[in-house]
Amino acid sequence: MEKYMEAGATVVQSVRLDDEKDVLIILDQTLLPNEKKFLEIHKIEDLWEAIHSLRVRGAPAIGIAAGYGAYLGIKDCDAATYEELYEAFKKVKTYLGSSRPTAVNLFWALDRMEARLKREEGKAIEQIKTSLREEAEKIRIEDEKVCEAIGNYALSLLEPGWGILTHCNAGTIATAKYGTALAPIYLGHAKGYDFKVYADETRPLLQGARLTAWELKEAGVDVTLICDNMASIVMKEGRIQAVLVGCDRVAANGDVANKIGTSGVAIMAKHYQIPFYVCAPLSTIDMNCSDGEKIHIELRSDEEITSKWYEKPMAPAGVKAYNPCFDVTDHGLITAIITEKGIAYPPYHESLSTMFNK
Amino acid sequence: MEKYMEAGATVVQSVRLDDEKDVLIILDQTLLPNEKKFLEIHKIEDLWEAIHSLRVRGAPAIGIAAGYGAYLGIKDCDAATYEELYEAFKKVKTYLGSSRPTAVNLFWALDRMEARLKREEGKAIEQIKTSLREEAEKIRIEDEKVCEAIGNYALSLLEPGWGILTHCNAGTIATAKYGTALAPIYLGHAKGYDFKVYADETRPLLQGARLTAWELKEAGVDVTLICDNMASIVMKEGRIQAVLVGCDRVAANGDVANKIGTSGVAIMAKHYQIPFYVCAPLSTIDMNCSDGEKIHIELRSDEEITSKWYEKPMAPAGVKAYNPCFDVTDHGLITAIITEKGIAYPPYHESLSTMFNK
Repeated sequence: MEKYMEAGATVVQSVRLDDEKDVLIILDQTLLPNEKKFLEIHKIEDLWEAIHSLRVRGAPAIGIAAGYGAYLGIKDCDAATYEELYEAFKKVKTYLGSSRPTAVNLFWALDRMEARLKREEGKAIEQIKTSLREEAEKIRIEDEKVCEAIGNYALSLLEPGWGILTHCNAGTIATAKYGTALAPIYLGHAKGYDFKVYADETRPLLQGARLTAWELKEAGVDVTLICDNMASIVMKEGRIQAVLVGCDRVAANGDVANKIGTSGVAIMAKHYQIPFYVCAPLSTIDMNCSDGEKIHIELRSDEEITSKWYEKPMAPAGVKAYNPCFDVTDHGLITAIITEKGIAYPPYHESLSTMFNK
Repeated sequence: MEKYMEAGATVVQSVRLDDEKDVLIILDQTLLPNEKKFLEIHKIEDLWEAIHSLRVRGAPAIGIAAGYGAYLGIKDCDAATYEELYEAFKKVKTYLGSSRPTAVNLFWALDRMEARLKREEGKAIEQIKTSLREEAEKIRIEDEKVCEAIGNYALSLLEPGWGILTHCNAGTIATAKYGTALAPIYLGHAKGYDFKVYADETRPLLQGARLTAWELKEAGVDVTLICDNMASIVMKEGRIQAVLVGCDRVAANGDVANKIGTSGVAIMAKHYQIPFYVCAPLSTIDMNCSDGEKIHIELRSDEEITSKWYEKPMAPAGVKAYNPCFDVTDHGLITAIITEKGIAYPPYHESLSTMFNK
């Protein structure tokens, strides 16, 4: 455990409260990978802007930021009664909720903060404010514990010196700390496991190049950036002993929706007989969704493929493009699904159920 | 055949002689996909620059341009004797050979022009010049015939309305006309086959986005651009009935070296039970190379992945990258290899040999 703590010092935390100043500290992810800049957030107007402009991104990180935001929004208010404080809180909640209306974790965190506020009715105003600060901290700490637990379970499947391929960003900056797919990398790194990580750049939005490569390099992990279409050659050359990916949603049968390209990586891993692991907090497992066929795939704009990031368009004007944001990896391609409650193996409709009863 | 001729009118030719003006016309491929501009090449200095600056690219197209260049270089010279003409030719050959010293087809074409010149010794100077013009035309016409033959054989494997995935650019602008992998698309298009082509953008150099999408769109073919990591989802969704790719080199056992990412596409095609066809002129088949293990894979600069094309770098400064230019697709993943002499099926060490005896 001591070693994990040491490792902790080098793993970037993208959202946290500065205890002394009582302000929110946020890594400005829009400046990555070219600049590492932390913002001091004193006012909820600044937090609104940070969430809206994607300076904070990653579902768990947004939830954590919103929790702290709810506290920041009321900590200096001069409410004399619970009712006045509650009124102030409601305004803050509505305001922060408008920063990114499609972010589920934003509303989940704000609802949780409101529930805590209600439980505090009758206590002194200052005491209630302290409780809200505590609740925001709890949201962050719980997320960190989930990531750490996933990381330890996943690490039990890996060996020192292994080459590991990952796709997109399921890393520390999207969560409280450690991330999901990258958690075992950080925990193993602290134990001297000496992993060689290959990061798919992850077109079209380049989360692998901009975020994964950045945060692993920042922590001193040996990381090599490749284009998505190089996954096959690095596997064939024997550079990869395991694939680790995160996920957006897991169906009851173990089908996994994740960033576009994940299913192709899984097919290649199976071809080369390399284990393919999905790191999935229980919050992403939807036992009411029977299989991947039921998962809606969001289509995004052509422009992300044809011209985004470039000095000038790299495809002919007016050409059609097809830009699905996610794909579904068939459960038959997945070696194991790793949750904070343990490791689920096929058949998943059984093993995933048991995770909820632990 | 009439229909092919009609189709011909719409298929871009990147290198040709303008009969009336007796000048070389070259599509400036460095301006693609944003501008379609043909250059009139009057002097070999301009051709040298065009080859050196990759305005002409694609092994066959470079060879064709060099053939015409050898003619352009001597057609206005005032040699009175064969010896004087030969001296002038040698200077032209050495000069053009220095434009891109690694391009095998450049030297192949210049050697062929020199051999023709030698065969003409004793004829009148004007007659010899005409013969060299004729030889340059022959190089172009032969390449077009090869492409057309590959296209017709490949087309026999396809059905109207099919969705076809291709990777990189093995198209008309890299050859005299039609290309290799794209030849059946053009020939089928002229017959009303109504193919739906999906073009992998082909990172890091984006030949699919810049060149394949451009030339197919230019010819009126229904083309959709995707990121390389979207090949799996378009296959899974039933959009693809065949994969067609070109190749750089084929080993005697049928292993194929082609643009990085090709082997991954082949693995996915096999997983989804979609036929995977390689279009290969006999000139790319090396029966002295026993298998793909013997093929050297060129590594290119990290910068192509981390910063090329972008407004600003999209990966952290100093991060490692791995940038192999080609990969080898195992013969076991290839449904058939299509040459100008016919279609080779497994076992390839037998079927490829027979192609050379036709």
